[in-house]
Amino acid sequence: MNTRLVVNYLSQIIIYFSIVFILPILIAFYYNEDVFAYLIPMSLCLFLGFIAYHLSKPESEIAKYKEGYAIVGLGWLFVSILGSIPYIYYHTHPVDAFFETMSGFTTTGATIFNRVEVLPKSLLFWRGLTQWLGGMGIVVLFVAIFPALSKKGETLLQAEVPGLKVEKIRPKLRDTAIRLYATYMFLTALEILLLYTFGMSLFDSITHTFTTLSTGGFSTHSESIAYFQNPAIEAVIFVFMILGGTNFALIYLLLNRNFRFLKDTEFRFYIALILIASAVICILNLDRYPLTQSIRFSFFQTTSIMTTTGYTTVDFDKWSDSARLLILVLMFIGGSTGSTGGGIKVARIYLLSMHSLSQILKSAEPRTARIVRFNDEIVDKEILNNITAFFSLYILIFVISTLAVSLTGLDFITSVSAVSATLNNVGPGLGMVGASESYASLPTPAKLILAFDMWVGRLELFTVLSLFIPAFWRERW
Amino acid sequence: MNTRLVVNYLSQIIIYFSIVFILPILIAFYYNEDVFAYLIPMSLCLFLGFIAYHLSKPESEIAKYKEGYAIVGLGWLFVSILGSIPYIYYHTHPVDAFFETMSGFTTTGATIFNRVEVLPKSLLFWRGLTQWLGGMGIVVLFVAIFPALSKKGETLLQAEVPGLKVEKIRPKLRDTAIRLYATYMFLTALEILLLYTFGMSLFDSITHTFTTLSTGGFSTHSESIAYFQNPAIEAVIFVFMILGGTNFALIYLLLNRNFRFLKDTEFRFYIALILIASAVICILNLDRYPLTQSIRFSFFQTTSIMTTTGYTTVDFDKWSDSARLLILVLMFIGGSTGSTGGGIKVARIYLLSMHSLSQILKSAEPRTARIVRFNDEIVDKEILNNITAFFSLYILIFVISTLAVSLTGLDFITSVSAVSATLNNVGPGLGMVGASESYASLPTPAKLILAFDMWVGRLELFTVLSLFIPAFWRERW
Repeated sequence: MNTRLVVNYLSQIIIYFSIVFILPILIAFYYNEDVFAYLIPMSLCLFLGFIAYHLSKPESEIAKYKEGYAIVGLGWLFVSILGSIPYIYYHTHPVDAFFETMSGFTTTGATIFNRVEVLPKSLLFWRGLTQWLGGMGIVVLFVAIFPALSKKGETLLQAEVPGLKVEKIRPKLRDTAIRLYATYMFLTALEILLLYTFGMSLFDSITHTFTTLSTGGFSTHSESIAYFQNPAIEAVIFVFMILGGTNFALIYLLLNRNFRFLKDTEFRFYIALILIASAVICILNLDRYPLTQSIRFSFFQTTSIMTTTGYTTVDFDKWSDSARLLILVLMFIGGSTGSTGGGIKVARIYLLSMHSLSQILKSAEPRTARIVRFNDEIVDKEILNNITAFFSLYILIFVISTLAVSLTGLDFITSVSAVSATLNNVGPGLGMVGASESYASLPTPAKLILAFDMWVGRLELFTVLSLFIPAFWRERW
Repeated sequence: MNTRLVVNYLSQIIIYFSIVFILPILIAFYYNEDVFAYLIPMSLCLFLGFIAYHLSKPESEIAKYKEGYAIVGLGWLFVSILGSIPYIYYHTHPVDAFFETMSGFTTTGATIFNRVEVLPKSLLFWRGLTQWLGGMGIVVLFVAIFPALSKKGETLLQAEVPGLKVEKIRPKLRDTAIRLYATYMFLTALEILLLYTFGMSLFDSITHTFTTLSTGGFSTHSESIAYFQNPAIEAVIFVFMILGGTNFALIYLLLNRNFRFLKDTEFRFYIALILIASAVICILNLDRYPLTQSIRFSFFQTTSIMTTTGYTTVDFDKWSDSARLLILVLMFIGGSTGSTGGGIKVARIYLLSMHSLSQILKSAEPRTARIVRFNDEIVDKEILNNITAFFSLYILIFVISTLAVSLTGLDFITSVSAVSATLNNVGPGLGMVGASESYASLPTPAKLILAFDMWVGRLELFTVLSLFIPAFWRERW
């Protein structure tokens, strides 16, 4: 492990990160709120960053996978710690503040605030901004903007971007990152405009756009989207949640009049899953609501959960047990590769199902070669094996976390759903962490385990888990 | 698919199966009960068997994997249907009778009888006997005894025996099967003797031995082992449950003064898991029972669940939620390869964990070769890939079954635990199917789904699942 190199990169990330605080400072100015809540962490980032930078001139510039993992894994941790200072400034318990910030950057959306209306506007803005930044990836952003980092971008990106692999829409990585971020910016502007047009305040439009496209789910109202009671707003958010869970490369191509999404295996499976699951839940809800209401609630809520956004227009914890179980399962499916959504990812679930089917056939007739196709190409066996290994590890982490969380005294359904909602970066769960509750009442150890799950889930297991293996830190291993 | 061959083998299995009914007929004679309950299915087996046998002289004798799967998969289904006739004779609903028989042969132990004391002695005997037969495998038994079947034994055995592969303790398959069955018989005689010595009636000793060694868990008392309130009996059953969950090849070797079990990776991991899990549950139960009672209940109950026996000395559904969650997880671990236990199997869980660990390391440093060892040998990558694929498919079946069962109207915890308890061949679950309840009150569709899960779980997925793929039945595919 080239520690100097890791510290060097981390210090750069923290220095760049300090710039981000300018935005809530401007908002605080506008609303006449205290700017020190953001000036303090900003100065701290600059101070710590420059000290570390000057103490860590790296001997060599060769960043291997290992170094990339350490930079991205620890980068997210440090940013979540430094980003929690504004909450602490406003008298939030440090563990709660860390939980909220990790929940922000990982676009989980699990909150420890029972009533968010009492928070200062600038803090609500910061809360939304963490999700917007985390959605596309903090490191991707810096890679896109700052040439100094983009040299080693490939290694870093691979450790941060969700899904099977980074799709290069341009030969150069930095160009790809810039184009993806431009797409993200364009959609952000478009959603703000639409929400504002349909009657949201400008402040709410901005903060909700931040948390829709990033499939984050933080709202500036405790009732979430139910607060607005506005079908047009729900429709806009519905569409942008679906976009948030879509591979941004496909959206970029669409904006350039390339309709590849129509033939994309993952996108078609993604839309099919949303429609089927919503329809099933709609039917299950027919004894609870009249038809039109059932359609409205079920389609919004199902999409919100599967894209791992976590907005609510209705308390789905009051639905039937089969609907609640289905909701839990959808959390694990999540969004598409290269989207801002969490979970296992649609492409993996698709390939996992196809691989399982082919394994059944192969077991009964070993000599016959069974192939799995994706976007008209034969999928390499190695990729399929990696996916089953990923899935197995994902389930192991889920099981161990659930047991650990339950040992802190949580009940059965709360333990299962809290881990599902955080590991998959969804937000609200069932029981004590249900749609109309918050994570405030959980014991501190449970909050730390769940924050760990958000971190592990967002960076897709390996980046974070490898940090905990002693051999990882050894020079030669 | 060589249908004639499949029908030919199936007819032989059914003919041999008819012989089994002689035992309950003798018991019925002894207790002055109705022998027709067993004479009818016996005659039916002979009649159907001989007709099918004479209509299906096979053109070729070559049994491929496919044919082996069809023979074993359908063999277990037919035996469960024909074996349910005695229950139907005694006025049990056919679906319930089928559920109970499938639960017997698959050594699940889930029962639809609220009170078993009202059943005739011969039926209780038959109920236990189905588990004893199912424990080592029905087809293995016939392969061992009847030379006509042993020619194709290898293919059949592979489809029936749990775990990674059939361990050949003798070069000839039939010799291996005979030795394993002899070990089983010896342990059976030993346990009957011990239980009788410690105060059980001879009838109870026999029926409980049938269901201990097979890790089945049917009892002749509704209170299960709690009925006896006898620590010595609990101790004997505790030891034989552990033996039932052990690879019988190791026990055979031990009886021949070969102490290979001491160095066996799976056996050591198996014992370690039982001890650790029991100790954890013992600690969790300290606020419920005094220390000695907590040790007694926790060690017995944990072992009963992990070996997938399903006996109860205490209603574990009343334990804390973390203990109940741990119990659910243990169900999935199950017994050892080549044992009578169900679940995913200890060896697979061990290799899955080691493989996951090596994957984490490999992802951060791809050039380094990471190896997994088992019994001092390097495990082939292909085996590891098969295990992750098996695990993934297992979880998919679990999730789909849970959703399906919940759609019949069962609550959250009942759905999750009923599928866990049947897919892993354990027996009692939580909630409506808890330790002091039965499966009687479930809706018929739920019973059929759960019976399917027992069948799929016992034959380790592929054998049964392939029967449901249309391509499997085609001549060429």
